[in-house]
Amino acid sequence: MILAADVGGTNIRSAVITSHGEIVQELRSRISLGDRDVSENELIEKLSALFDEIIRKHGSISAIGIGFPGFFSGSSGILVSSPNLPQLHNVNLAGKLSAAVNIPVSIQNDALCAAIGEHRFGAGKGHSNLLHITLGTGIGGGLILNNTPYTGEGGMAMEFGHLRVVNSDSPRSCGCGGSGCVEAYASATAVSERYFELSGIQTDARDIYERACKGDSQAIRIIESAGHCLGMAIAEATKLLDIHTITISGGVTGAWPLLHPAIISSLDANLIPPLKGRVSVLRSTLDDSAGLLGAAALVS
Amino acid sequence: MILAADVGGTNIRSAVITSHGEIVQELRSRISLGDRDVSENELIEKLSALFDEIIRKHGSISAIGIGFPGFFSGSSGILVSSPNLPQLHNVNLAGKLSAAVNIPVSIQNDALCAAIGEHRFGAGKGHSNLLHITLGTGIGGGLILNNTPYTGEGGMAMEFGHLRVVNSDSPRSCGCGGSGCVEAYASATAVSERYFELSGIQTDARDIYERACKGDSQAIRIIESAGHCLGMAIAEATKLLDIHTITISGGVTGAWPLLHPAIISSLDANLIPPLKGRVSVLRSTLDDSAGLLGAAALVS
Repeated sequence: MILAADVGGTNIRSAVITSHGEIVQELRSRISLGDRDVSENELIEKLSALFDEIIRKHGSISAIGIGFPGFFSGSSGILVSSPNLPQLHNVNLAGKLSAAVNIPVSIQNDALCAAIGEHRFGAGKGHSNLLHITLGTGIGGGLILNNTPYTGEGGMAMEFGHLRVVNSDSPRSCGCGGSGCVEAYASATAVSERYFELSGIQTDARDIYERACKGDSQAIRIIESAGHCLGMAIAEATKLLDIHTITISGGVTGAWPLLHPAIISSLDANLIPPLKGRVSVLRSTLDDSAGLLGAAALVS
Repeated sequence: MILAADVGGTNIRSAVITSHGEIVQELRSRISLGDRDVSENELIEKLSALFDEIIRKHGSISAIGIGFPGFFSGSSGILVSSPNLPQLHNVNLAGKLSAAVNIPVSIQNDALCAAIGEHRFGAGKGHSNLLHITLGTGIGGGLILNNTPYTGEGGMAMEFGHLRVVNSDSPRSCGCGGSGCVEAYASATAVSERYFELSGIQTDARDIYERACKGDSQAIRIIESAGHCLGMAIAEATKLLDIHTITISGGVTGAWPLLHPAIISSLDANLIPPLKGRVSVLRSTLDDSAGLLGAAALVS
């Protein structure tokens, strides 16, 4: 049995998983890591206390795989940096956690874990090259090339959410400090904000999709615009990578019947002729389990 | 000795090259391949006649490496398609040429050959990951990942020239059928066209740089704008690939003292914070020999 964890700023999802990708038990723990005051030692302590408890309950856990919101150096388990935890630099997270819990630990970027999960167990299965996009609070990306996770030189590859899709006079601001990024148009947060701006109604992306299904023209407009921006960004990635399989996970994919045609239409309009019609954009079949299954795959 | 060739629409540059990358002899032949009427057999005949002549003169040639303007399936030597020779589809160019000249032939996309040459012998030497950009009539790109040329699933990777950098109300049209592509702003052709639009003077990119050096404000504006657009496109590629070494070749790099600061300033403005300052943009040290040396490297 493997213990997999998907670490977020305020939540940690953990699961006990077989080496075949069957989730035996899943739990969600509230834990505050988003606090800029949390030190390296406190982070290690909080995580290892949580893992220790689960290991004690399940005697048969042989290793831990973790998806973490940060940039890692290759597959070393060394956290180079984390945009949400700027106080952490060049920390051997895998090594320190392994020393604390006394079993092997492997750790990788959370979006890359989702890509690994989707490639091994989900809609990307059987494709040796895969670009996986996660639509959540932000937008992440993970790349599999020739059946191998691609990290880039500094562990920062596939910052897909920060591809710039709008550079007109008034592009929307993005959390990265830039503007016009696809994340500012198509993340769950952006969809919610844009709907509020248009309608004055504060609600989440999932509800906005339901409103769109019922014919709410403002909701339809926001979701189609998100698809349009995603299609543009996928076109840019495809022109560079010539990858033919794209998978997308996350809450916004609830709107797939509206989102997918908008993505495909914009993708087709933005590709060079020899690439047109070659790229499949698939909805994740694992959705929010992709990250956990990918984290498990790091150690199985 | 190796015979290397860089095939263009109207010109073929060939060279006899040692396995250490020393060019022993170089020649340029006028040959019309850009004609849409040229058949597959005529293409093979024209090329093999030229190669045969060179092989007869130099008894010691053991293999031929060719850079060709088209998309190749992996390293198979099979031309999938060529935007400039649309009548050619799935042609085993390497196999047919090899049968005709009776020595081994290897063939690959021309921009990828330039990347291979720059990586093996030029400014990219010693870097295991490299993005090479060619600024000519169009803009091409070639990618080396982990010391291996990257072709993509259909041989169409690194269509860098068609990254979209302008999507305002009136983006410039591009030869690909789209608009706002970096090629429409920063290729030698675009620099020349844009200078003509601004000044009414018809001249080439090299002369425009010389004018810029003498203080011609219109020439300075066009070259700085080309650098700005290149920086934007490099930022997009870097956000996806997290590659830290970029090399650029081609006539427009004559304007390096003006072009490089414009590229760096725009790159820095468009990168996400953790990538800022990590990316080096280097001028090719091989310039128009990169493609020939890379073609030679295919067979040595």
